[in-house]
Amino acid sequence: MPSITREDLAARDAADPLKSFRGRFDIPEGLIYLDGNSLGPLLNSVRDRVADVVSREWGQDLITSWNKNKWMELAGRIGGKIAPMIGAGGHEVLAADSTSINIFKLLSAALKMRPGRRVILSEAGNFPTDLYIAEGLVSLLGGDYSLRLMDKAENLADYLDDDVAVVMITQVDYRTGRKLDMAAVTKQVQDAGALMLWDLAHSAGAFPVDLNGAKADFAVGCGYKYLNGGPGAPAFLFVADRHQATIQPALSGWLGHANPFAFTSDYKPATGIARHTVGTPPVLSMSALDEALSLFAEVPMEGLLKKSQQLTGLFIDLVEQECGGHGLELASPREAAARGSQVSFRSQNGYAIMQALIARKVIGDFRDPDIMRFGFAPLYISYADVWDAVAILRDVLETGAWDVDAFKQRAAVT
Amino acid sequence: MPSITREDLAARDAADPLKSFRGRFDIPEGLIYLDGNSLGPLLNSVRDRVADVVSREWGQDLITSWNKNKWMELAGRIGGKIAPMIGAGGHEVLAADSTSINIFKLLSAALKMRPGRRVILSEAGNFPTDLYIAEGLVSLLGGDYSLRLMDKAENLADYLDDDVAVVMITQVDYRTGRKLDMAAVTKQVQDAGALMLWDLAHSAGAFPVDLNGAKADFAVGCGYKYLNGGPGAPAFLFVADRHQATIQPALSGWLGHANPFAFTSDYKPATGIARHTVGTPPVLSMSALDEALSLFAEVPMEGLLKKSQQLTGLFIDLVEQECGGHGLELASPREAAARGSQVSFRSQNGYAIMQALIARKVIGDFRDPDIMRFGFAPLYISYADVWDAVAILRDVLETGAWDVDAFKQRAAVT
Repeated sequence: MPSITREDLAARDAADPLKSFRGRFDIPEGLIYLDGNSLGPLLNSVRDRVADVVSREWGQDLITSWNKNKWMELAGRIGGKIAPMIGAGGHEVLAADSTSINIFKLLSAALKMRPGRRVILSEAGNFPTDLYIAEGLVSLLGGDYSLRLMDKAENLADYLDDDVAVVMITQVDYRTGRKLDMAAVTKQVQDAGALMLWDLAHSAGAFPVDLNGAKADFAVGCGYKYLNGGPGAPAFLFVADRHQATIQPALSGWLGHANPFAFTSDYKPATGIARHTVGTPPVLSMSALDEALSLFAEVPMEGLLKKSQQLTGLFIDLVEQECGGHGLELASPREAAARGSQVSFRSQNGYAIMQALIARKVIGDFRDPDIMRFGFAPLYISYADVWDAVAILRDVLETGAWDVDAFKQRAAVT
Repeated sequence: MPSITREDLAARDAADPLKSFRGRFDIPEGLIYLDGNSLGPLLNSVRDRVADVVSREWGQDLITSWNKNKWMELAGRIGGKIAPMIGAGGHEVLAADSTSINIFKLLSAALKMRPGRRVILSEAGNFPTDLYIAEGLVSLLGGDYSLRLMDKAENLADYLDDDVAVVMITQVDYRTGRKLDMAAVTKQVQDAGALMLWDLAHSAGAFPVDLNGAKADFAVGCGYKYLNGGPGAPAFLFVADRHQATIQPALSGWLGHANPFAFTSDYKPATGIARHTVGTPPVLSMSALDEALSLFAEVPMEGLLKKSQQLTGLFIDLVEQECGGHGLELASPREAAARGSQVSFRSQNGYAIMQALIARKVIGDFRDPDIMRFGFAPLYISYADVWDAVAILRDVLETGAWDVDAFKQRAAVT
């Protein structure tokens, strides 16, 4: 491979069809923000929208806003905006609660839909909250319900049997960035008689997902990572059309009722996806997410995928070109199709190196025991950013700055 | 009773020790807002705080805000602010999720704490989401779990038996404003071997509550009514100290883990109240609530109770003085100690009358089949407001304006 230069990358940025989106974000000057897989940055339009929701909608219009400013429709409207990004119908997606709570809703429903089967199957390395929620559910149900953990999703066949009611996997592994073939896994699960629940926390907004193409049963996802909905933004859930009429919510709250304002004492679920609403949604946080999603209506999803793969591939190539000999080990798949929009490297000094990078305004994060994560959100990361990040990484490694920093920190503490 | 005059009331306002609080709210000019029991109005400080959280904390500080701007501490800090208002220790209260979801958490835990008892007891007229959540829970658990409904809480003794695991009652009835004696009811429930869960939706922030004085086991409450936390603000929950070490969350999410950032695959609950956190909280909405609660640190709770009772009592007196002969029937208790901070009147024309009042900027609300609700939040409602509201009500009734309005609406539709 011939050496890549910064000039090459500046030229690539100039020709990038997504380049105009960066100016829509309010990213601090000089920051190379490679942590949008943890918390997406602020869009200027979102700042304005939240101010308007607070001052006018809440402050002036008060309770009339539930109708006048369509607060009642927020959950479904957000769902409708997410739907085309994940290969779903607008009536199949709803914004609600947190990812954790949405997992509880769908796992509890899935167990009811496969009576006689008592096992939730997931991956040992799944994001912890997915596993914790499953643990809590099987503990609540008691009896012989259980959570079964695969060593890794690639060995799914070894773990599937007639006891498995539902399989829950995060498509993109939060540590390594490994991305699974949704259609193939879903088929394997359904062929074994189980239901498939996808966690799209690190997928939605990073590249196009095709839930209905894969015939997925259920999905959940996160509003505050690649969707840029703000800290702790409400999450979303997907229920395939074919399940909507029969699924019975265990978290049956008043806003999921067929007629909430009749105030009847008997629960009757709303038609369709709306029944998965529980309590009154946090309107300020919902409005921020709603506004952030408006951007995606302008984004060509295939272009997003292409740039995601190019940015992550470039980062791998450049680290190997510029930072050889420092013991970094690629933790992410080298094959673009098998990788989400992040790249992880392992290093025994990972924590200190990441601290040194952050001090130099290259923001990634660290996950125990040795993973440095770098997220590449195609809407605001440029090819030149990748060069600059790697140049700073190389400098940190070559000058031993990470070790100096770590020493200073130790000195400051003691 | 000698006639009350507006001058009397203006004098009472001038001497009101709570009068300075009204200026802290951004209430639209000319509005008499008697619907703070549905959605509390905007505080000026909250508008500023939300703008700062969006622009600086999220926009500039990004992920560092979880520590730097103490987002991680929000749930507990809010709990600590609510605690003295409800007679709880700071370590017994947490802001989280919605009231509905918090009810699910506590009911599911309560059933586990009373093995062998299979009944959730509540009131037929309880706010529907409380009942719906209980229905969903017993349906999820299957077997012989059930929800039992009392005709009214006053007949509690007729419904308590050895099957009842937990009793869930809303202290202040959302339609009539009836307020129960928390200590007496709790004792009766506990003497029967059951646990007591109070819903404080219409209590917290309207008058002082004494959960620990009443030896309550659990409570939930709402952030967006008398606490003024904003539309759909996160709710809160209370777990008495004596239960905290043993209670096992069924909604066991990662932020309720003893060490969330260790990312271990086994759930181990955090010490104390923090274990009832589930997913990542909606920071924008949480911050608004946190800021709104700062006001209450300045509020004398006994003064709040006194003014609440005076405002509601005055409204009853004035309606009876000024609006006799129009068929309004008091639905709220006449005795101040038995009444929350709202007054409800029944009328077969209630819906149309309320529409006419709203058109004249007296904002209350209507609940089927015939209830007109008027909420009196002592921090921003004056005695003269009560006079003015009744004067407008009288005008609406005497001139038949409600009927004219209804006629116009019908004409506009057809």
